[in-house]
Amino acid sequence: MPLTPDQSDEIAHLRSQTVPTRRATVPALEEILYEAFPALDHGFVRVIDYMGDDAAVVQAARVSYGRGTRKVSEDAGLIRYLMRHWHSTPFEMCEIKFHVKLPIFIARQWIRHRTANVNEYSARYSILDKEFYIPASENLSAQSTLNRQGRGEVLEGAEAARVLDLLREDSERAYRGYAEMLNQDEDGAQADPSRSGLARELARMNLSLNYYTQWYWKVDLHNLMHFLRLRADSHAQYEIRVYADIMIDIMNRWVPSTAEAFREYRLGAASLSATGLAIVRRMLAGETVTQPDSGLSKREWRELMEQLGRPADV
Amino acid sequence: MPLTPDQSDEIAHLRSQTVPTRRATVPALEEILYEAFPALDHGFVRVIDYMGDDAAVVQAARVSYGRGTRKVSEDAGLIRYLMRHWHSTPFEMCEIKFHVKLPIFIARQWIRHRTANVNEYSARYSILDKEFYIPASENLSAQSTLNRQGRGEVLEGAEAARVLDLLREDSERAYRGYAEMLNQDEDGAQADPSRSGLARELARMNLSLNYYTQWYWKVDLHNLMHFLRLRADSHAQYEIRVYADIMIDIMNRWVPSTAEAFREYRLGAASLSATGLAIVRRMLAGETVTQPDSGLSKREWRELMEQLGRPADV
Amino acid sequence: MPLTPDQSDEIAHLRSQTVPTRRATVPALEEILYEAFPALDHGFVRVIDYMGDDAAVVQAARVSYGRGTRKVSEDAGLIRYLMRHWHSTPFEMCEIKFHVKLPIFIARQWIRHRTANVNEYSARYSILDKEFYIPASENLSAQSTLNRQGRGEVLEGAEAARVLDLLREDSERAYRGYAEMLNQDEDGAQADPSRSGLARELARMNLSLNYYTQWYWKVDLHNLMHFLRLRADSHAQYEIRVYADIMIDIMNRWVPSTAEAFREYRLGAASLSATGLAIVRRMLAGETVTQPDSGLSKREWRELMEQLGRPADV
Amino acid sequence: MPLTPDQSDEIAHLRSQTVPTRRATVPALEEILYEAFPALDHGFVRVIDYMGDDAAVVQAARVSYGRGTRKVSEDAGLIRYLMRHWHSTPFEMCEIKFHVKLPIFIARQWIRHRTANVNEYSARYSILDKEFYIPASENLSAQSTLNRQGRGEVLEGAEAARVLDLLREDSERAYRGYAEMLNQDEDGAQADPSRSGLARELARMNLSLNYYTQWYWKVDLHNLMHFLRLRADSHAQYEIRVYADIMIDIMNRWVPSTAEAFREYRLGAASLSATGLAIVRRMLAGETVTQPDSGLSKREWRELMEQLGRPADV
Repeated sequence: MPLTPDQSDEIAHLRSQTVPTRRATVPALEEILYEAFPALDHGFVRVIDYMGDDAAVVQAARVSYGRGTRKVSEDAGLIRYLMRHWHSTPFEMCEIKFHVKLPIFIARQWIRHRTANVNEYSARYSILDKEFYIPASENLSAQSTLNRQGRGEVLEGAEAARVLDLLREDSERAYRGYAEMLNQDEDGAQADPSRSGLARELARMNLSLNYYTQWYWKVDLHNLMHFLRLRADSHAQYEIRVYADIMIDIMNRWVPSTAEAFREYRLGAASLSATGLAIVRRMLAGETVTQPDSGLSKREWRELMEQLGRPADV
Repeated sequence: MPLTPDQSDEIAHLRSQTVPTRRATVPALEEILYEAFPALDHGFVRVIDYMGDDAAVVQAARVSYGRGTRKVSEDAGLIRYLMRHWHSTPFEMCEIKFHVKLPIFIARQWIRHRTANVNEYSARYSILDKEFYIPASENLSAQSTLNRQGRGEVLEGAEAARVLDLLREDSERAYRGYAEMLNQDEDGAQADPSRSGLARELARMNLSLNYYTQWYWKVDLHNLMHFLRLRADSHAQYEIRVYADIMIDIMNRWVPSTAEAFREYRLGAASLSATGLAIVRRMLAGETVTQPDSGLSKREWRELMEQLGRPADV
Repeated sequence: MPLTPDQSDEIAHLRSQTVPTRRATVPALEEILYEAFPALDHGFVRVIDYMGDDAAVVQAARVSYGRGTRKVSEDAGLIRYLMRHWHSTPFEMCEIKFHVKLPIFIARQWIRHRTANVNEYSARYSILDKEFYIPASENLSAQSTLNRQGRGEVLEGAEAARVLDLLREDSERAYRGYAEMLNQDEDGAQADPSRSGLARELARMNLSLNYYTQWYWKVDLHNLMHFLRLRADSHAQYEIRVYADIMIDIMNRWVPSTAEAFREYRLGAASLSATGLAIVRRMLAGETVTQPDSGLSKREWRELMEQLGRPADV
Repeated sequence: MPLTPDQSDEIAHLRSQTVPTRRATVPALEEILYEAFPALDHGFVRVIDYMGDDAAVVQAARVSYGRGTRKVSEDAGLIRYLMRHWHSTPFEMCEIKFHVKLPIFIARQWIRHRTANVNEYSARYSILDKEFYIPASENLSAQSTLNRQGRGEVLEGAEAARVLDLLREDSERAYRGYAEMLNQDEDGAQADPSRSGLARELARMNLSLNYYTQWYWKVDLHNLMHFLRLRADSHAQYEIRVYADIMIDIMNRWVPSTAEAFREYRLGAASLSATGLAIVRRMLAGETVTQPDSGLSKREWRELMEQLGRPADV
């Protein structure tokens, strides 16, 4: 369970209060505001705040004085048009702020998306809790033999057991070293009055990359979709996809028309290369095209045939 | 008057409706939400939406589960600390969205601040109204003779009258040419059925830079303060300062503690160069320092003495 | 002719000098360094400086100590892979700096690409030359009747002549007003010693949007390609496409492997929506699909059929 | 020693070759191009490429056709002016690319500077070397008792020895676990043919934050100075200051006039708050000001007196 009772109380307190506002408001998102959606073994995603809704996209695209059209269907049509033609600025007019708890090695991938605002819990200033990520056994995958940057079969039997033991033992030991260097006992009190304790900014380096950190992460809707398109993709590492999938559910609540256009023109869409497009045209004209006369490498040919739902024959 | 009756009605309609929210809400800002604050002769600034408040800065700095402390004085102290030590990321956690109407030559200065989101009214797609900026006579300044990028005395008499006539006549004429090329009469209808009308994206180039445009401009609090520090400065062009001053008033309503720290550590602060600091130390130690033995140029010496409230003696 | 003799001399002087460097250097780009490529009637594009080459993309992708592989074919393969899989950061490792002279209404479109560095000629500080854009007659298009943001047929006969006259007369007149307000004669000298002259920062607003400005524009290769994909597109305004086309030629010289991958996976590529992809799959499986049972609007159906080289039948 | 013989050979090879270029070139920087400057126990900083020089700042500020003035003193004067008045865009016209090897916990601080381009060595794709940071004994500091985010006295005797032992042992053990999970022996070969080996993207999480990573980091001169002002500051963590100090030396070689202005107006400068400025004015007018009647807190008073070289008396 990712939250302490105190934290749950603080959240419940926030959720119990409403005040009137004149701003664009989304009831389906208000419903889950501040709630922690669990991710991995100790992580979570919480929505802390948001600005705008589907109508705000329309309103900005039109630079209008009021809230845009009142018909949802007209707004949805314009939103589809904007998405199809890569008009990104109207989507930048909505903003969302998350509180995320995640393992450090995932935080290092995530932060590469620069067009966002971040405040991370500081281990220079505070002491990290003893919380580390251990994969569930069904996610304990071998190195892929085909793709240097991918996962293969799930490990089993003795090898799986040994890996889990190693991860747990080394993580436990790293924290024992951390606490001892800090001169802290289990309750956070000074352990040995004759010692000074190493500076926090140094002691933290003994922790391993599966330790959890947390941050506030604020992003506009356009950049959120860019993040989700890359991180909800099947090539993304499983541990970040878990977070991306939760955020897609949140987006469905927040901006349903935009989310639908996003599925149609980004998530479910296909990009054909110039050569790939020429092949499709030839096939539709009745020609039988094979890999050797396609102009594509075997790998690209397989990828294209998979997209088109055809046998690859190579 | 910058608004049409229709626009005023749309705004009044928006202002008449409130809904409940669980989000951080600022009553003093809600009070003026959507209202148009006039700027120059036809422009305005309106707040369309906002995210966060002073407490949200504190909450992000602490990566807290609840809304941070409940004592305003503690929050204000932390905010002052963050501002003093250039911790910018907590201020990025608040966001505000403006609707601004402004002359094109000012829009061209404004857009140089890149860390913001913008949707501008498109003259490729729509037809611009006949609204152009004419300075009030007290702002009709001569070129400065000291500073190539500055204003001198206010023009008077015949020269002032001639300038105002020229500005008005040329602006009127530019619009006549624009409308004629578009083949539009005064009501926006086709003027001459035998003509096609020039493409909007071309016709717009006949308008002059004092014509008004408008945009939605969304920015986080840190970057807003950066904008205001530069554009509310006495070296900024008067016409953009008018907008910056309105936005400072809005900021005072929105985040009063942050606004106070901003005045203390940015707007009212002084930056001393290494040499300037050494001079102050020498003066405080009782030494009489003069420009020739100061290590500063005459210009920098005058600037320093002015900051220190001392006679320049050069 | 866009350059004065003095400017041409300065450029020739720069081009006459070479010095030794250990940096990655591209002879085909050195050949044209500093040269002005004409654009529209008075504009140009010049390359002022560059950093990196195709091999620098590979070197960064591998975080290597040396200059990466020596075989051009291996580098090209990796570059194609990076482009296909949207790995953008290695392309950010190359940088190019342009000097561009362009009409203000085009500069206003261009500057919306925020991820670049810009220094523009300041009309607060200096006086603009009398240079304005007048379209060639073959580019004098009517407003499109199908697309609010597009051009239709070319204007002809009396209407074309009238438009050109209006553009020229109004531009001339705007400059006369500008010079008179500045109190400058044709040689830039004070015209009337009894007058002060309006501040430059005010006088400039009398000029129209077809006047030329100029800037230094510096951008990394990834963001350059993003700019070119949008601005060399057939939906972009003709006047900005002229610049984009010149820059694509420059890119071909600078980074030929990247430029080839860019044509294959971006410029010549097609994006199919989820529904569009399903239609292609059905057609390839032998099904006859028509617009009404396609799930697409008529407009999207036409766009898809055009991409696929099929008759639209609607 | 941070480099292998192969890496040193690659660097020597690069350094041995020069080609002619027409670009702005800085001999003092060419002299050290590609060289590795050691940082901490296994890290380094290398300059891989650069664009522009002091004259390029001037050239951009003037949007000039040639290379600006030829007199270094005039250029230096303009550079000082630009720095003093916070004109940042001309400094954005120079760019530098570094190859940096650094501990992961420092990389996590560093990456918070978002306005830069980064390519990091991927532990999803490749296997990290067994290289971790152990502080030299003179940098093994206790937690500060005054400042939660700072260091106090250097640890000594048994406590220091114990901390160093813990860091070394836990780092060694973390790598043993990493290699065993990967099923790799010391030469990188498969250790046990009956096992699959855990995916690299998972195994990496067993490593601790003192392990070294490396990246290419490219930044413009303005944002480099912003980074250096914060990270060469006495409040920055020692381990990142080591890198910042090396980069300041590099900057001195690259753009000596800009570096001088940077020391004068940024590094050695002082920012006085509005209240602080008022106090200095009172003191210069002969008044004796004490903390209680200063309007400053004790902490701010001490900071101000230290800046001014006066006793704090509180």
